[in-house]
Amino acid sequence: MSWYQKTIRLQPYPRGFHIITSQIEREMPEIRELKMGTAHIFIMHTSASLSLNENASPDVRTDMEAHFNKMIPENAPYYRHTLEGPDDMPAHIKASLLGSSLMLPIKNGRFYLGTWQGIYLCEHRDHASGRNLVVTLNGE
Amino acid sequence: MSWYQKTIRLQPYPRGFHIITSQIEREMPEIRELKMGTAHIFIMHTSASLSLNENASPDVRTDMEAHFNKMIPENAPYYRHTLEGPDDMPAHIKASLLGSSLMLPIKNGRFYLGTWQGIYLCEHRDHASGRNLVVTLNGE
Amino acid sequence: MSWYQKTIRLQPYPRGFHIITSQIEREMPEIRELKMGTAHIFIMHTSASLSLNENASPDVRTDMEAHFNKMIPENAPYYRHTLEGPDDMPAHIKASLLGSSLMLPIKNGRFYLGTWQGIYLCEHRDHASGRNLVVTLNGE
Repeated sequence: MSWYQKTIRLQPYPRGFHIITSQIEREMPEIRELKMGTAHIFIMHTSASLSLNENASPDVRTDMEAHFNKMIPENAPYYRHTLEGPDDMPAHIKASLLGSSLMLPIKNGRFYLGTWQGIYLCEHRDHASGRNLVVTLNGE
Repeated sequence: MSWYQKTIRLQPYPRGFHIITSQIEREMPEIRELKMGTAHIFIMHTSASLSLNENASPDVRTDMEAHFNKMIPENAPYYRHTLEGPDDMPAHIKASLLGSSLMLPIKNGRFYLGTWQGIYLCEHRDHASGRNLVVTLNGE
Repeated sequence: MSWYQKTIRLQPYPRGFHIITSQIEREMPEIRELKMGTAHIFIMHTSASLSLNENASPDVRTDMEAHFNKMIPENAPYYRHTLEGPDDMPAHIKASLLGSSLMLPIKNGRFYLGTWQGIYLCEHRDHASGRNLVVTLNGE
C-alpha cells in the first residue's frame, strides 16, 4: 500500500485545449511501483480545467475551443464579474463544466487509459501564467 | 493508512451557488490525522451538484446561476419530464453537467486547494429541503 | 485494506442515456468485502461518458438526450473534425462535459447512493460497438 503526491508546475499555455499526458507520466515515475490503484490529477485554479479526450486529431482540440466559446460567450449581458476582462467569467464557467480533477485507473505501473484517451489541459484565460497540478497516486 | 466516512446534512439553501468549504472542514476534523491522501465529497441527489470555483467575488456565483439558467432553460418545448415543475428537468441536466462529486487532495491535514478555490453547493431546485453529502477521507 | 480492479465489457447501446447500475453491481460482487471505501468507474472512450442521475422516470433520460443534442448540435459550421460523421465531434464535446469517470462512496458492502441515483451510460455515437469500463474498488 503506497501513496505518492507531487505538485507539478506547467508552463504557460495559450488559451485552448492541450495534451499533457506525457509530461505527467514523465514527472510521476513512481507510478511504476503500483500494480493496481488510482491516480488523482487536480488543478489548483478556477479558470482552467482538466479533461480526457481524443489524443489523435488536433482538430478535436480546435473544435472544442470553438464550441465552448460559443456555448459560454464573452460579454454576455448578464455577467457582472467583468473587472478582470471579458475572458474571465467565461473561464470560471468552463472550469466548472469541465471540472478540476481527473481520476484515472492505474494498472501494471501505468495509467490504464483507452487507446484514444489523452489528458487535456483546458486553458480558458487569454494570458495565463503557468498552472499548478497536484498528482496523488494510491495503490499497491 | 486510515479511512473516515461521514454523512453531512446541509441546511436548505435557495436556488443558486453557495460556498460550503468551511462547513465541510468543520465537520471533518479527522482530516488533521492525514499527512497525504484524498477527500471524496459526494452529493446524494440528482437535482443539486458540487463544484469548485472562485471563493472571493460573489458575482461569480451570481453569474454562474444566470448562465446556467440561460444554457439550460426552463420550459424547453422538448421536455417531457415536467410533472414536478419547470425547475425540475433543468435541475437534472445541470446536476449531470456539474457533477455529483469532488475529489480533493489532502496534504498536511488539510484540503490542498488553490488560493481561490472554494467548494460550491450548486442548488438547482427552487424549494429544496436540505441535502445530504457523504465525505470519505483516505490517506496516511 | 483491499483493492479490486476489473474491466467490464458493456453490450452495444443505442445513442442516448441508459441505466447500468445493476450490471455493475452484478459484476463486482467483491464490493461486499468492503465496509467503507470508494468505487471508481471509468470509461475507456472519448465519445461516451458516465453520469449519475434519476433512476425512476425514463423521461429524464429522453430529455437529457434532447437537451444535449440542442446544446451541442451536429453540423455546427465551425466543426473541422467531421470525417467520422456528424455525430462524432458532438460526441467528443458531450464526453468532456459529462466526464469519463464516476467516484462513488462504498458503505457496508454496497454503493452508497441516494434513493433516486442511478449510474448512466451516456452513449453519444449513433452506431457504437460495446464499451469498456474499468472498475476499481478500494476500502477496508
